[in-house]
Parts: sequence; structure tokens; C-alpha cells
Amino acid sequence: MKVTISTYLLMRLKELNVNHLFGIPGDYVLPFFDELIDEHHGVEHVLTRNEMNGTYAADGYSRENGYGAMAVTFGVGSLSCANAVAGAYSDDSPMMVISGAPTVEVINTPTERLLHHVVGTDFDTNLKVFSNITVGAIRLEKQSTATYEIDNLLRKSVQAKKPVYLEIPYDIQTQLVDAPDQPLDLMLEQSSSVNMMKALKDAYEIISSSKTRSVVTGHLLKREHMIEEGLTLVERLNASVSTTFVCKMGDFDSHPNAVGTFLGQTSQEYTVDMMTKADVAIGLGMTFNEFDTGVFTTTMGNNQDVIWIRQNYVEINGKRYDEVYLREFLPKLNQIIMDVPEGEFEPSDKRKFVFERKDKFAPTNDDITIDRLFVQFANYLKPNDMVYGDTGGHINGSQAEFPAGTLFEGCGNWGSLGAGFGIYVGANIANEKRAARSVCISGEGAFTMTGQELATLIEHKKDLALFILDNAGYGAERAINPGKERSYNNIAVWKYEKLGEALGGTEGVDLHSYVVKTEAEMQQVFDKLENPKGVNIVRIMLDPNDSAEFNIKFSGALKH
Amino acid sequence: MKVTISTYLLMRLKELNVNHLFGIPGDYVLPFFDELIDEHHGVEHVLTRNEMNGTYAADGYSRENGYGAMAVTFGVGSLSCANAVAGAYSDDSPMMVISGAPTVEVINTPTERLLHHVVGTDFDTNLKVFSNITVGAIRLEKQSTATYEIDNLLRKSVQAKKPVYLEIPYDIQTQLVDAPDQPLDLMLEQSSSVNMMKALKDAYEIISSSKTRSVVTGHLLKREHMIEEGLTLVERLNASVSTTFVCKMGDFDSHPNAVGTFLGQTSQEYTVDMMTKADVAIGLGMTFNEFDTGVFTTTMGNNQDVIWIRQNYVEINGKRYDEVYLREFLPKLNQIIMDVPEGEFEPSDKRKFVFERKDKFAPTNDDITIDRLFVQFANYLKPNDMVYGDTGGHINGSQAEFPAGTLFEGCGNWGSLGAGFGIYVGANIANEKRAARSVCISGEGAFTMTGQELATLIEHKKDLALFILDNAGYGAERAINPGKERSYNNIAVWKYEKLGEALGGTEGVDLHSYVVKTEAEMQQVFDKLENPKGVNIVRIMLDPNDSAEFNIKFSGALKH
Repeated sequence: MKVTISTYLLMRLKELNVNHLFGIPGDYVLPFFDELIDEHHGVEHVLTRNEMNGTYAADGYSRENGYGAMAVTFGVGSLSCANAVAGAYSDDSPMMVISGAPTVEVINTPTERLLHHVVGTDFDTNLKVFSNITVGAIRLEKQSTATYEIDNLLRKSVQAKKPVYLEIPYDIQTQLVDAPDQPLDLMLEQSSSVNMMKALKDAYEIISSSKTRSVVTGHLLKREHMIEEGLTLVERLNASVSTTFVCKMGDFDSHPNAVGTFLGQTSQEYTVDMMTKADVAIGLGMTFNEFDTGVFTTTMGNNQDVIWIRQNYVEINGKRYDEVYLREFLPKLNQIIMDVPEGEFEPSDKRKFVFERKDKFAPTNDDITIDRLFVQFANYLKPNDMVYGDTGGHINGSQAEFPAGTLFEGCGNWGSLGAGFGIYVGANIANEKRAARSVCISGEGAFTMTGQELATLIEHKKDLALFILDNAGYGAERAINPGKERSYNNIAVWKYEKLGEALGGTEGVDLHSYVVKTEAEMQQVFDKLENPKGVNIVRIMLDPNDSAEFNIKFSGALKH
Repeated sequence: MKVTISTYLLMRLKELNVNHLFGIPGDYVLPFFDELIDEHHGVEHVLTRNEMNGTYAADGYSRENGYGAMAVTFGVGSLSCANAVAGAYSDDSPMMVISGAPTVEVINTPTERLLHHVVGTDFDTNLKVFSNITVGAIRLEKQSTATYEIDNLLRKSVQAKKPVYLEIPYDIQTQLVDAPDQPLDLMLEQSSSVNMMKALKDAYEIISSSKTRSVVTGHLLKREHMIEEGLTLVERLNASVSTTFVCKMGDFDSHPNAVGTFLGQTSQEYTVDMMTKADVAIGLGMTFNEFDTGVFTTTMGNNQDVIWIRQNYVEINGKRYDEVYLREFLPKLNQIIMDVPEGEFEPSDKRKFVFERKDKFAPTNDDITIDRLFVQFANYLKPNDMVYGDTGGHINGSQAEFPAGTLFEGCGNWGSLGAGFGIYVGANIANEKRAARSVCISGEGAFTMTGQELATLIEHKKDLALFILDNAGYGAERAINPGKERSYNNIAVWKYEKLGEALGGTEGVDLHSYVVKTEAEMQQVFDKLENPKGVNIVRIMLDPNDSAEFNIKFSGALKH
């Protein structure tokens, strides 16, 4: 069967669980969009309000469904995606930006004509830009190699858990190729067997001679779909376990051996002790990124054995084993340690998280403070919730204890304001099957950057609870100079309770808005939103000078 | 006197008429922002809602005031500006993006650390990206050369009328240098005297032997502040004159010798005849861009003499004189033609513009159609108005006749949806001195991309009339396949009349909203907004399948 190159690509994306493709049409990419809405490939189009938001959404979709894609027109579309693509790169979220382009003949004919959407007369601008922020940026120019190039680009992206950029000239979009006759073979890279053996041997020796063990979990564990294996490791070793900022996994937070969120020396004292005083510490799927390491203050491995299990290598006490992949190493490690005696772990009543679910919370009629709000929020959460945070919501939320089955992500180490909400929009679109209770908590400095995307959730009649922290400014930035008035941190106040209606919702029907100022009011809303129906917007009024203690401590560590 | 490098830069920007600097703070750029709000340089900070919008605003500010600037933090900020910077490049709007960065030592120390806002471990990502979309992308690393490098970068930008990118590491932002003791010497490039002489001689010969002459005006005439000289040329030659899409100048539209908007063969028949059948045609400050040339359908010069006066060269009947600058050539040309006999120009009653101000418009109770709306709109305009358009508003608006002293710009040849409104926001901030009546007309597919920036205009208590064309989708794109239903062109409908309040305005106080469906309703609103006070949002309800005749014709020409 012959299909167009556009449809071939869509069929491949569908194999990667891309059931929804985000996209904004434009003249250079219209043949692709025609295929998207007319042909049978199982991929549905979701229009977003702009290209950056749509790329965030594709990133978020990938975090939920394993892969995401965003389609745009040339130049004006693709360049609008740059920041969000760099974010997907930084936080290891595999996705594809698909861009239209002028025809192959136009592209390859030198000209003095200044075509629209083209920077000067250089048709390669977008390829050059994206080569810096992806693991692959290519243009399809030949029908004969197109399917090979598409498969190969998807492979690279899934292998590296990074974004790629695919440019398809106007005429190429409708050229015919054979439909896939075999499932996409990702041909993921295999570990070096020699290095694997050595790494397993070293790890086994260290582990078997240890009595106390600690495991710090990172986002790559989720990206590689290895959370279950991670739990097995923790249990076989009877290790203490912590989560990190970029992706908190409630399965570990709620584990009996949980000791908190680990961010180096900015963590709770008990968490630091448990992680760094065990005989052996295992860094499981975290990268050496600034936020997860508490601005590089971590002392893991300084006075203990340490095993770093990264995505594509293992490092044991400073000795590095390249080409040993997390997804292959971890199951094997779990096998060979079955005979290792269980380690020692003493449950403790010491404080593990800044905001714990067992913290009793009796709402008062006092104004809400951030420090108390996140305790209340932690208690609002239920197992298997989908939870995302943006900047203020993400930074403070990372210090909360999450229930089993939840995942908490947001702006990650890239740390772009507004990304968390954009990512949440895509995650929410991916939520169709899981039908989780869907929650987003965002600072308003961040939210207002991408807030028009709320219209997409309203249009698609989604159920969700969106909490907006209104402190009239950039709270995270105020924490850098606490108490010092800086006008650039103050932003004009929006009336969020009126926003949903302006963006197309009907208050009381598919839309419900709340403004809360006291703990009691907050509690009433949390109770009401036990099973949120429709789009629920909760504006939480905060004192502009209120900062969570943790936030000030963390910002203090963030020196340049 | 010693000042910081940040203040030095701000003092230089102030010399270029940058009284307002757009910017969004972030930790890598905070020392610069501290200087921005604390020091005495005369530059005021305007916070925008996100970085892309702010860059559009800086572009728009430049169009009004001659230069614009946007300050952002590293990576998350700078990469968000990419599309808008490429737009400024395409439409020749000089401006600077100022980005913070990690310290010089951090940048120059190889590391495996993954710092926040950094793509992998590559600190040069932003420089590499911006080198493709600016005429200069540099990082200041040395105190000793910083002031030279700043001056030089500004020079390049003003010379080329293009954007530049300046990265200032955290520690460099507060280093001390001598304050400027001389005004910024732009040292603009001088024309080659030999080429200038030859070009003038050739032009003189052609012009003096001609009886009929035509002049088509382009946006570089405005960028080089040469509109007056352009008028002089038209008058001395008694030439017919037309305006173009990227920047329409009402001084020419309203001139007795005006013959319409020229976009090649997509223009009115009379306009084509007058431009292409004169003995000599002069292309004055237009580039060879797709929209101004009517998708390259122009036949100027085919059967007549032709003189192209570009920004940095002159081309006469195919012979090119490099290094001859518009800003120097035009005044000299005006001098030497003083003795040339006046050409022939017969006033005519033939149709010049698609939408003419002399078209009688009697409002009916019928629903508004685009074709009639723009006649009504043309009659609403007054001399010296500030008018911007976005996509649907820009495309159709370009076919209207503008009164003297007005300028009409928008998305230009870059053609990015949402750019026109973002640009308008910056232009409006620049409007403080001129205090023109300030008008924006935007399609809603475009507006919703950057619409949250309305909050900035509300915050700053601006007076303006914003007309939003609501046809529930991408009207310009529907015109590509008229009558064919394509779901990707339909966008969820917002309630624009509620948007201003949601974004912080108070209806009836600093904010007024209107919804109009009939011509009579439209007329009432136009009458009411004779001198708009506060932010006025007018939602114009249109039939989704209504397209202006011109739009369909133009889109038909736009083949790939």
C-alpha cells in the first residue's frame, strides 16, 4: 500500500503512542495538515494557541505517553518552538517538531528573492538553529530515502530521550512511499557486554559488602519506564530512598523506606544523613543537574561508596563504564543481588519532607501562607493523581510528599517560566485513557506567560483543577533577595476568576472559578474539588512578601 | 565618571531614543535589572508577559522611536525571543536582545555539570542560534573592550537596520567602565563616491528623458527616516506614487498623485498600469520581498526604465551600483533633478485602492462583511493616527487608503501570526510623546497567540482602540482553499469582551468592551471611539466563510 510521506510519519508516530499531535497550520505545511485530518492513521490533531505552547504540550504529552509531536509552518512556526525544544532537551523528554518548508526546488535554487517566513535568503536557518537544541535536525529532500530517514530520526530521539527536528518541504509532504510493513524497529543501542559485566561485578561487590544503602531516584527512571525496577532495587536492598526535583515519583515518596526529597545540602537534615551516611549510595537515573543536586551541594560518594546509574553509563567510585544502559543494567543488577543479605533500615519519626502528608492540618480562618498551603495541598492529593507544577508551584511542590502512583513534574532543570503549565496542557490531553484526577499548581508569574493555553483545555472539555498562586509577582525571584523591594518582580494582577470565561468557558457549566484567601476557604475548595468536573480555576491570594522557608534556603544556594 | 557596563549600555541605548526597555528578569540577568531600576540613565523598564511578546514590543518600539531593546535571562529567556528576532531581521527593524549569562569563569571552565537554563554543557548555544538571525551576536567577556564592543554592535544594528544579540555574563554586568564622554558615533558607512556619481548620472539621464514617472515606496524609506525626501522626489518628478504591504505610509496614499497599493499583478488595474507603463519606474526603499512584489508578480522594469533604490545599493536597468546608500543617494538625486522638466500626471477617477476613503459608506443594519468593513475602517481613520494590523487586519488593511501622517505596519514579510499585536504593544508604549490616536486591527487567530500582552497596555493605562476580527478561525488560511472546510482552521471562540477585565482592567473605568455584528453597530462604536480613552476592545463578529476578494486573489497567487 502506498501512502504519502506525511501519513507514513503519522503512522510511525502512532506506533510510539502519539494519539494526539499538536500543531498550528501555516501555508508551507498545509499538505501535511490535510493528511493529518483526512487520512486514517489514528492520530488526532489538537490545535494550540501558539507554537511555543504547543511544543510545551508535546513535551508534556511525551512525559505521559512516551512520545510527543508538534507540527508547525516554516520559520515563524519553528523558531517559536526553540525555547520549549531546548527544555525538552534539558529534561530528557523525547519529541519531534515537524516543520513545513518551501519546495525542494525552491530551497535548492539560489535566489535574491526574499520569500515570506524565510530569514534573508537562507533556507537552512531553522536546521542550523535546531542542530543546537536537538539530537537530530534534518530535512527530507528525497522520496527514496524518506522513510529510512524518518525511522532513523525517531530512533535517535527515543534512544537519547531528546527532541528532534524534521523539516518536510511542501512537495515532499504528499509524495508516495510504501506504508510500513513492519513495526518500527527502534534498534536501541545495546550495552557493551564487557563493560556491563565489569560494572555489575563492581556494583555487586560494593553492595554485598554494605550494610546500609541509599537510593536517590531521578527522572530518567521514569523516562526509561523503570519505576517498577527501581522499587524492586529499593526493596531487595532494603535501602532508604529519596526523590528529586525534576521528577518526583510518588511510589518512592510513599514507600516505607522513603526519607524525603534529596537536593544535596538544601534537603532536610534526616534526608541528607540517610543518603550520604549509608555504606553505599546509588544515584538511580538522575543526571548531574543543578536542581537535583541542590546547586551541586550534594556530598554523595564523598565518604561512602557510590554507584551512579546514568542513562547510558555507570560510574562506580569514580570508575566509568561507558555504553552501559540504565534500561539494561538495572534489571540485571536486580537479578544478581537476589542473594545479597537485606540491608539495615530503621524507620524513623524524623522529618523527611518539608511538607508531609501526615502533618496534621486543621484549617484556620487565617490568611493562607505558602508554608502551610503546601501541607494542605499534600493532603489534598490522592494516589494516582496527575500533578504538574509551574515555577512557584513546582519549586515548593517538590518539597511535598506525594502519594503512590503520582508523578510530579514541571519546569525541571531547564526552569522556564510558563513551561510547567504548557507541559500540563499536553499531559492533560494524554490523560484520556488513564483518566487520572488532573491537577496543576502554578505561580502566576509563570502562568501568565502561557496562560492562553487554558483555552485548549476548555475547548476539549477537560476535567481539572488549576491552582494559581497569586502573589502579584515573581515569588521565586523575590526569594533571591528576600525583603528587598524590586519593581521588576511585580506583575500586574489578573482576575483569574474571570479568565476562563474570557477564554471561551461558561461559568457554572464547564467552568468553575474560586478565589480563596484563608485556609478555611481553601479547604472548602479542596473538598469541593475531590473529583473535579470541568475546568476549575482556583486563585489563591498570597502575601507578596511571603516565601516558603525552603525557597529562600534554596535560592540562597543559587549563587553565580 | 565610572559606571557599570550595564549602565553604560543603557546610556547608549538612551542616545538611540530608547526611553523604555522591555524585559523579563531572571537570575542570570538580575544585576543588569538592578542597574536598570536603580541608576540614572533615563531608561524605564517595561515588564511584558513573556519574552517573545517583549521582543515583538521592542521591534514595534523601534518602528516608532528608531531603536528598541529587550532584556532577558539566559536560555529560557533568549531562546523565547528567536521568532520575533527573525521577524525584526526580515522586516529591517533595528533592535537589541540583551541576555544575562553565567559568570565568565563558569562559561570558560569545561564541566560535566548541567546548570539550569543551559542546554547540556554548551554555554555557546544562544550565541550560535542568534548568529543565524541577527547581524551580530556577541558575548562581553572583558571589561577592557566592553564599551568598544557595545558601541560597535549598536553601530552594526543601526547601519543594517537589523537586530543584534548581546550576552553579558553575570559578573560583567556590574564591572565598572568610564561613562561615555562623547556621544555615540554611529560611523555609518559612506557611499562609494565613484559609484554614487555614476548612479546619479545614469538616473539623471533616464529621468530627464522621461515624460511619465512612477514611484513605489517601501518600508526602508521609513526606516531611514526619508519619507520627506520621498515626497520631494514625487513632487519634483510629478510622478505617480504607490505604497506597499510591509509599511504603508499615509503621506503617499493621500498624495494627489497616489495611485494605490502596489503588489504586482494582484494590485488594482489602474495601479498596475500607472506603475508599469510610466517611462521610468522607481522602486524607492522597498526590498525584493514576496508580499511587496505581489508574490513576485511585479512587472516593473519589464517594458520601461527602472531605478531600484535599495538600502545599500542602487540598480538601474540591471546595472548595479554597490555601496550607494539610500539615505545619501535620495537627497542628492532630489538636488540634481531640480532642473528636470516636470513629468506628466493626469488625475483620474479610476479605482486606486480596494478600500478608498472617498467610497461613500452608509451603514446598514446588515451583518458586517470584510469587504465593506475595511471601507468603513478607512473612513474611521484620521490624519496622524498610529495604526497597526495583525494578519487578517494587516492583509486587508494594506488595501485601504490611509490618511496623511499615518503609518500602517504589522506582520510584514516575515508574516508571523501574533506579531502585529505584539509590535503594536511596543509602538503604543513609544506613543507617549506623539500622543497619536492609537489603533490596532487584528484577526483573532493572530491575536490569541500574543493576546495576554493586552495586560501590559491595561497596566500602563494606555488609550487605544483594538478591533478584533472574530471569524472563529484562521481567515487568511481559509482564503487559500476558499469554501473548503478544514478543521485545522477553526479555533475555539473567545469572549473578547470579557478579556480586558480578566487581564486586570475594570470595565467602564479604564476599559470598554463592545461586540458588533451589523454595520450600524460598527458605526456607533467608531463614532464613540473618535478619541478613544482607556483600553477599548471591539469584537467584530464575522461570517467564518467571508473573505475579502483581495485576500482570495492574493492567496491564489501564493503557490509553493
